[in-house]
Amino acid sequence: MIKACPFGTHRVMEPKGTMPQAAQKIDNTMTIADNELLLDVMTLNIDSASFTQVKSACNSDVAKMEEMITGIVSERGKMQNPVTGSGGMLIGEVKEIGPNFPDKTLKVGDKLATLVSLSLTPLKIEKIKNINLSNDQVDIDGQAVLFESGIYSVLPADIPEKLALAALDVAGAPAQVERLVKKGDTVCIIGGGGKSGILCAYQAMVNAGPDGKVIVIEYSEENAKRILDMNLAHHVIVADATKPVEIYEKVKEITGEDVCDVVINNVNVPNTEMSSILITKDDGIVYFFSMATSFTKAALGAEGVGKDVQMIVGNGYAKNHADLTLGIIRDSEVIRELFEKLYV
Amino acid sequence: MIKACPFGTHRVMEPKGTMPQAAQKIDNTMTIADNELLLDVMTLNIDSASFTQVKSACNSDVAKMEEMITGIVSERGKMQNPVTGSGGMLIGEVKEIGPNFPDKTLKVGDKLATLVSLSLTPLKIEKIKNINLSNDQVDIDGQAVLFESGIYSVLPADIPEKLALAALDVAGAPAQVERLVKKGDTVCIIGGGGKSGILCAYQAMVNAGPDGKVIVIEYSEENAKRILDMNLAHHVIVADATKPVEIYEKVKEITGEDVCDVVINNVNVPNTEMSSILITKDDGIVYFFSMATSFTKAALGAEGVGKDVQMIVGNGYAKNHADLTLGIIRDSEVIRELFEKLYV
Repeated sequence: MIKACPFGTHRVMEPKGTMPQAAQKIDNTMTIADNELLLDVMTLNIDSASFTQVKSACNSDVAKMEEMITGIVSERGKMQNPVTGSGGMLIGEVKEIGPNFPDKTLKVGDKLATLVSLSLTPLKIEKIKNINLSNDQVDIDGQAVLFESGIYSVLPADIPEKLALAALDVAGAPAQVERLVKKGDTVCIIGGGGKSGILCAYQAMVNAGPDGKVIVIEYSEENAKRILDMNLAHHVIVADATKPVEIYEKVKEITGEDVCDVVINNVNVPNTEMSSILITKDDGIVYFFSMATSFTKAALGAEGVGKDVQMIVGNGYAKNHADLTLGIIRDSEVIRELFEKLYV
Repeated sequence: MIKACPFGTHRVMEPKGTMPQAAQKIDNTMTIADNELLLDVMTLNIDSASFTQVKSACNSDVAKMEEMITGIVSERGKMQNPVTGSGGMLIGEVKEIGPNFPDKTLKVGDKLATLVSLSLTPLKIEKIKNINLSNDQVDIDGQAVLFESGIYSVLPADIPEKLALAALDVAGAPAQVERLVKKGDTVCIIGGGGKSGILCAYQAMVNAGPDGKVIVIEYSEENAKRILDMNLAHHVIVADATKPVEIYEKVKEITGEDVCDVVINNVNVPNTEMSSILITKDDGIVYFFSMATSFTKAALGAEGVGKDVQMIVGNGYAKNHADLTLGIIRDSEVIRELFEKLYV
């Protein structure tokens, strides 16, 4: 057993000198270093942008998707979508713990969800058992390695595993909403009808309080109705977020010229940067949680319309994000019911 | 004369419904709508990431670069680099003012620098007169149109035009440093030896004050020496910012485990996200001003190493950014001298 880099750079094969996430290929040998953790993997939760790309490239043909996913993992040693660059997370059972792995409370047999991206996690797939087209989850037989710096959450006893996995996958999003939204704020959640959108909308309602205003923009009529039924927003706009001028006009009908204090973008399709910027007031904040965000489009978009807004790159990690997110599942009966239906 | 959209959407040719920046092609007919401004263009200041890409694609062959730039503009109706997506800005003289253009103090014949990106500015090049390989400036005969929402700065009388153009091109960067850096902060400017880096380093020294620490990371030995000679940093590290582990170790030698409160990334090459993240302390801020930043690499990179840092997308526009930047040129004799040598 060798003493290895906390960030996993010892497993980078090419290009040398990069970090595992940036690497084209990492070493997925399932023999661990003294500071690593070996997991038996049950389920992958593919990142939404990545899953959407794979699904569309394969015309939703499950056999083709299986082949594509297996191909990516055997080529790169990790499940990192070559087009979107994104990964996802997994549920696994602890099989072996390196003697210098920092968490001394962890035991062989513990079940956990990894909170670092699959885009940097050494993974080996023996067999794909099931691909669930509706919830981005892929059941497999396989193994994975967690580095010393890797974060994870031991699965709670009171929440079904797949529900926890689905919620923890986007735990960063509601945690950031909790930090950014103040009492009385006007908040817009673009793509608020999806998984992370629902958690964000819930947290925005809590933080903005009775004097605030939470607006959800949704493409799907069905998801929009669901948000209203669940009482997770004051207003829901059914519209296409890739059409900035239309979105701007519709939001203005609700907010007036002032538009929004905080805008959270959760849409997993490209070209929604400009809508987000136009509906944010000067000195307001746009939080891009969507992995389909283009840095250049955001940066130049704001400058192009002379908007002095702060644009933040969604960080999947925030202190206590797992606890906060599992807390929402415990507190909100409607969200728990919906997620049980969708993900369990 | 038609009444047109303040954001210029009336000039979008394809795809319909997008904003001018996102469009593949915009209408560069040089007849203005009633809320537009027509400019005779003297000089383009190509964005650094774009210029570097063009230069490298053409092996620094000026005739080929001329052809490539002319080709892009005639195909897209704007100087937006198809690879980097970025633009730049221009100096022009006001030729015609639409009767409903908002600024009533502007006169025909005024010289101004546009502060919106070339990536959305309708442009027609009649002739390229000179390409300056060392400062990204391209002298042309041509015309451009500014939309109602377009921002610009009338060129000051006390600063040479090309110097003002060069400085205003990156005006957003020092303006953001002015907002983010607090007294006593440890600040790192990655790519601090270039144009925007120098302005950022100056402002960081002012804001951090005598108890702060300003570190510049530079690839070029020559630029690094210049920064020290100009007294624009307390420490200069000569290193390659695409090597995160090396950068992390070198910064730690100066700061200890605590690393930096604020990191400003100005490097115009890809794959420097991870270095920026590793040298930022938990709860610290990374400001990505580089157009070569990848959104996904930043987002997943921070999560991948479990860093709770706030990552901000560089906004080229901030209120009063032009005044602040021209103020630096007036206040700092060494910067003015250097920029006159490089850009005039």
